Amino acid sequence: MSAPMFDQITIIGMGLLGGSIGIGCMQKGLARKVIGAVRRESAIDEVMAKTAAHEATLDICEAVRTADLVIFAVPIPAIAPLAKTIAAAIAANSIVTDVASVKSCVVNRMEAIFGKRCRVVGAHPMAGSEKRSIAIADPAIFLNNVCIITPTEKTDKEAINRVSGLWEALGMSVKYVSPEQHDQCVALVSHLPHVAAFTLINTIKRSSHNPHQVIDFAGPGFRDATRIAASSPELWTEICLANKETLLGVVKAYQQELKSFIKTFEKGKTDELCRIFAEAKALKEASNEPSKDKV
Amino acid sequence: MSAPMFDQITIIGMGLLGGSIGIGCMQKGLARKVIGAVRRESAIDEVMAKTAAHEATLDICEAVRTADLVIFAVPIPAIAPLAKTIAAAIAANSIVTDVASVKSCVVNRMEAIFGKRCRVVGAHPMAGSEKRSIAIADPAIFLNNVCIITPTEKTDKEAINRVSGLWEALGMSVKYVSPEQHDQCVALVSHLPHVAAFTLINTIKRSSHNPHQVIDFAGPGFRDATRIAASSPELWTEICLANKETLLGVVKAYQQELKSFIKTFEKGKTDELCRIFAEAKALKEASNEPSKDKV
Repeated sequence: MSAPMFDQITIIGMGLLGGSIGIGCMQKGLARKVIGAVRRESAIDEVMAKTAAHEATLDICEAVRTADLVIFAVPIPAIAPLAKTIAAAIAANSIVTDVASVKSCVVNRMEAIFGKRCRVVGAHPMAGSEKRSIAIADPAIFLNNVCIITPTEKTDKEAINRVSGLWEALGMSVKYVSPEQHDQCVALVSHLPHVAAFTLINTIKRSSHNPHQVIDFAGPGFRDATRIAASSPELWTEICLANKETLLGVVKAYQQELKSFIKTFEKGKTDELCRIFAEAKALKEASNEPSKDKV
Repeated sequence: MSAPMFDQITIIGMGLLGGSIGIGCMQKGLARKVIGAVRRESAIDEVMAKTAAHEATLDICEAVRTADLVIFAVPIPAIAPLAKTIAAAIAANSIVTDVASVKSCVVNRMEAIFGKRCRVVGAHPMAGSEKRSIAIADPAIFLNNVCIITPTEKTDKEAINRVSGLWEALGMSVKYVSPEQHDQCVALVSHLPHVAAFTLINTIKRSSHNPHQVIDFAGPGFRDATRIAASSPELWTEICLANKETLLGVVKAYQQELKSFIKTFEKGKTDELCRIFAEAKALKEASNEPSKDKV
């Protein structure tokens, strides 16, 4: 046990991520007091049963009144409304952070809502699962994974350091990029592959009277390439809409690349086609992709 | 050891697939004699060292003269030229088969070249690896995987049964569809996913000054969705061109599906977007994809 890094951490939303943060803070003594704010009465018992907080409450304003760190761990569309709800109650100069997988819209909204009253730091711990329940909460999901911290011009330096310290104490390594750069990168390596996988499956559905029979021809290449098409439609709708403008640009770039492939393919020139595939293979193989659980 | 199913099997091309067939036939005594026809002098020793045939030879015409089964296990573009080379030497009424992963063009060409002299049966054992060397040949690659046999109106029934018997003896289960249906199915579940994966990687390359840094943001979803982008460019050029018309249709259907997604996404309606993703998830989860090594 190290000395508490915070006096009171309030976690708003105690699902997989909120719950895992809570358990980790409790186990490592990272705060003198951990409070979990939940929406459902029944969630209070779940939080206490998992020892994910010292207290759990439905009263979100009361929960943030004396916190020096408030962490939003709710679905993206819920963040702004809840931020408005607590804006007058939250302790002045406290730090507010989040765990959302899209950053520009979230950080911009939080900065606008909290103004100079408290210090906003955007964060995206790249850990988790499509399942969102506290039942599977476990701080081990953070170990050896990356947390992206997304400072803006307005972000307070000391607040960045304290939020970074929390994630490092939970076992993550921390990287810093702007919210816009973050959203562009995750649009390319996470959101676009999901769109491509959903679209692959729907193409098979539309191209055949008996798509199940077609999928009988599939091997491990297909299985891996489309695994993420089984992801939560609700979660991915939320993510796509939160990153709409950036992702639209990326999907259109993909559409352009596909169009250019079709043009080359129609010409049927072996060497040109081979060059396209070789180019992809080279970048794929040269990239040191992390191997651990990241979204 | 069962009684030999064939008097003499000649395998043209002793790479991963040809070599694995040869070793399997030798181990199980499926032919009184197994001959491997190879292109390189040095390959003769490799075949003998792996006990993949009783004899290996560079003389392809001599190799097929007394065979009752000839198996083409060479790259697709090599099949027609080699078929022409042996057309006058091959034993009358012998059975000719192959292992190509595209069927219409191969079966049509073989039927045209061999005419009524011998009996053509197209086959696609769905096993293998992007590596093609005899060094990794092993008949275990066939076990519990599917071999697609693609009869046409012209195909001799007894020849189908004897080719099926060979693949079953090597541990595969056999399915029958027309060459056209085969090519449509593999275009959807194998060739299109490869095109999509190559295109995903090239989109990242084109969208960023530092694509490696972008890929640093990737997690296991990206890794799996793009694993097949590391496949052999030469092999995939060959496959795409062999299945050109069918695959072009399928890639254009995918392009259409992507266009329709973009249109819905631009409107930004939560329920419509969610319905698209849910549709894909439902088909993905309802499909019992085989879990073994298939290409």
